[in-house]
Amino acid sequence: MQKLQSFKARTGEPLGAPLMACTPEQVDAAAEAAAQAFVSWSASNGATRAALLRGLAAALESDREDLVALADEETALGPVRLNGELDRTAFQLRRFADIAERGVPFAFTDDPAVPGAPPVGHPAMVRQRVPLGPVAMFSASNFPFAFSVLGGDTASALAAGCPVVVKAHSGHLVLSNRVAGLIPRVLKSQGLPAGLISMIQGSGTDVGVRLIRHPAIAAGAFTGSTRGGAALQAEANGRPRPIPFYGELGSTNPVVALPAILATKGAELAATLAGSIAQGCGQFCTSPGVIVLIDSPQDKATNDAFVQQLTTALSAQNPHAMLTPGMRQAFDAGVVHMTAAGAHPLVKEAGNAEAPRPFLAQVNAVSFIAKSALREELFGPSSLIVRAESVAEALDVLQAVGGSLTVTLWGAETESNDTRALARGAMNIAGRVLFAGVPTGVAVTAAQQHGGPWPSSTQPMTTSVGDAALDRFLRPVCLQDAPAWLLARQGQPC
Amino acid sequence: MQKLQSFKARTGEPLGAPLMACTPEQVDAAAEAAAQAFVSWSASNGATRAALLRGLAAALESDREDLVALADEETALGPVRLNGELDRTAFQLRRFADIAERGVPFAFTDDPAVPGAPPVGHPAMVRQRVPLGPVAMFSASNFPFAFSVLGGDTASALAAGCPVVVKAHSGHLVLSNRVAGLIPRVLKSQGLPAGLISMIQGSGTDVGVRLIRHPAIAAGAFTGSTRGGAALQAEANGRPRPIPFYGELGSTNPVVALPAILATKGAELAATLAGSIAQGCGQFCTSPGVIVLIDSPQDKATNDAFVQQLTTALSAQNPHAMLTPGMRQAFDAGVVHMTAAGAHPLVKEAGNAEAPRPFLAQVNAVSFIAKSALREELFGPSSLIVRAESVAEALDVLQAVGGSLTVTLWGAETESNDTRALARGAMNIAGRVLFAGVPTGVAVTAAQQHGGPWPSSTQPMTTSVGDAALDRFLRPVCLQDAPAWLLARQGQPC
Repeated sequence: MQKLQSFKARTGEPLGAPLMACTPEQVDAAAEAAAQAFVSWSASNGATRAALLRGLAAALESDREDLVALADEETALGPVRLNGELDRTAFQLRRFADIAERGVPFAFTDDPAVPGAPPVGHPAMVRQRVPLGPVAMFSASNFPFAFSVLGGDTASALAAGCPVVVKAHSGHLVLSNRVAGLIPRVLKSQGLPAGLISMIQGSGTDVGVRLIRHPAIAAGAFTGSTRGGAALQAEANGRPRPIPFYGELGSTNPVVALPAILATKGAELAATLAGSIAQGCGQFCTSPGVIVLIDSPQDKATNDAFVQQLTTALSAQNPHAMLTPGMRQAFDAGVVHMTAAGAHPLVKEAGNAEAPRPFLAQVNAVSFIAKSALREELFGPSSLIVRAESVAEALDVLQAVGGSLTVTLWGAETESNDTRALARGAMNIAGRVLFAGVPTGVAVTAAQQHGGPWPSSTQPMTTSVGDAALDRFLRPVCLQDAPAWLLARQGQPC
Repeated sequence: MQKLQSFKARTGEPLGAPLMACTPEQVDAAAEAAAQAFVSWSASNGATRAALLRGLAAALESDREDLVALADEETALGPVRLNGELDRTAFQLRRFADIAERGVPFAFTDDPAVPGAPPVGHPAMVRQRVPLGPVAMFSASNFPFAFSVLGGDTASALAAGCPVVVKAHSGHLVLSNRVAGLIPRVLKSQGLPAGLISMIQGSGTDVGVRLIRHPAIAAGAFTGSTRGGAALQAEANGRPRPIPFYGELGSTNPVVALPAILATKGAELAATLAGSIAQGCGQFCTSPGVIVLIDSPQDKATNDAFVQQLTTALSAQNPHAMLTPGMRQAFDAGVVHMTAAGAHPLVKEAGNAEAPRPFLAQVNAVSFIAKSALREELFGPSSLIVRAESVAEALDVLQAVGGSLTVTLWGAETESNDTRALARGAMNIAGRVLFAGVPTGVAVTAAQQHGGPWPSSTQPMTTSVGDAALDRFLRPVCLQDAPAWLLARQGQPC
């Protein structure tokens, strides 16, 4: 049986004893227990769902000190960030508790009969939603709390009435087991079946692929690399009965900075941007990986000055260790790859064994559009400046990016043909368009949209963060001429 | 170049001169013209969209007599049905005109800034939707107006702000060309670009596959066979940039009839059901292809009597010709296939060259669950009675069906453990659950849901009929800290 060893992110030393990968039988058992739990959980009301989600939030918080210390050792993300992330995770659980309690999963459209012949006349109809069934949830590397065992996918699936089988991420396996260990007590205290939330670990066809292929699984949720997500999506589509697969994959998050704002606020924006690029060692889905500058002849000097300011500000950043040795190797290889593809380095210092150094490079728009290697996400503290010669060329750059979680547009405060065109160009390729600040930091709120065209999402109509994340796990059903006893249940689980 | 010949459905004689299949260059030109039209159409307001949709409805109606006569010759569906379908098609166009005019595509969620640190505090956010881009629309065989050139997919895509490239169905090619011929005049009279709605024809990799692969195409919409839809979906997923693909594929639409209602209303229900099975020669997505009876010992005689009533009623039906010789061949082969798989024929008469005869057969639940060949959709005037021994076994039958546009439940007027379980079992596998009447006839209304788990839909969260069909062609975008000039456009196209 496959042994799994976790490591301390800062030193590379083993963390704890090796763990055992799940056997195929254990994966099947988790999926089948989830299917069993679905019978009662899909029929649970909002109060029951809210109580579970709040119980899980409280369990996380009551173990905060130990959990954060362990997470810091395993991921090197630091106690400030990790305490904040635990707060966010508890907030998410409670927000979806409120959403369930408010009855959102049970909302319905009443469409009374209209007498007469079709197409105008029709029978009495009610449109409501039903939970999909057990969800296979694949944890992310970079948010050991918020996109992991009890993260947003789990919270939204449970609120929708779906059990969850979590595939733990190998980058924080000990923490995942520690968090998973909190769950049975909460389930038991609320009289809920153990199979409602379970966790599996291991890799490859025996574990992750077996899970997404299991007939009892009704949907997949994934946050991670484009390659890994595409492979799992192909498995979800290749099942005898394909299922929805919600993957949040790669994103380069372009920042388009107009010259006028750089002329007045260049230094401040450079410092903010450098902080965003290096934050969390660049290990964010929304890390700004492309910076587009527009070099009309009169603006070239302004842009050059901004490049210099950003170079200085980013050189002063000291990223912490990356999450895993594998991610560090991928980052170092990506820097070599991007340089070989023609990106001219501006900041490129050798990192040490513990932590990488930031990487900043520059290309012109023509090269960026021509070479797909320059448009790939480089996960880590890096960004690529793209020099366009006009607004039209900047729009071509955005179109070449094609799909992104975010686009940020600095200096669009005044309406003009240019700002209108850039706002539209940004909206055409992104799920979120920012007009101030930096894309890192994704609010858990009603209007959030975390997902855009491929490769940022496999299902760009959905979001994995914010209130609408719930919608991924509910399917509309229309009841036609329903009997009185069923209509009396409107607004309740069915 | 490939020549395309249409035929008169009743006689098999050629209808009109051969038409030319589109060249790959013509397919590309249609997609590129749609991309060009997207620039202005995506920025059009509700009134502009409504005017186009109403203009198209009026154009259809003003040519009603010729269109219906031609459609009848090409499809054999008969003038009553075809006049009704034209009414429905005009109704759909006007309904989506109203939806656009009411501002539904421009609806937004305002989420004002909350002061304070995350996770509670957040910047000002607005969640709205943007049209996806040009839609590749693959017409259905069985609704030459309502799911074809100016059908519901086209109406909902246009209302959403998306241009449409229609791939005509080979089963009514002359009619499709005739309808497409109405469009340029309407577009021109409203000052809209010709590329906003165009039609292509032909088959295989040069036409349909080339269209769904074209980089300018942002989504696919399809109504047809599971095999054809799955192949196009694989192409949509296999693109360098995968796109949403909305396929409405196969469905067997089980009817579960409880013994008590058969005891009192068996003859009436048998007549209604026979009419639904044979209606339109069974060429409906929602044709009832599976009838589940529950044989508790005391109910066996009632069920046997119903089977006899249905056999008699169906034998009395005289279906018209099928849409195409290929569909007729597939139906005849399907009858042989299903009989070979162990279905015991109850009505099985040889049809003549012009029209098939209805087919009714019977199996027990164990066989139905064991043999996938018995669960395949047999497109045409046919149904399979499945005899279950208990409610639990009937639920297993529904689970074996797995995904269906509809399930119909007769005799569930009173709440009991059985009716609750059956209602839940039906909702678990279907997009629409009916408690009276027959599944044929799909109202175009607010609560409609036409799409369920695979194979009835590739995207079971969406519907291809009803108001929510619009949602398929809009993607959420969150604007963060948007400038005043952009916020002033809230509720309008961006």
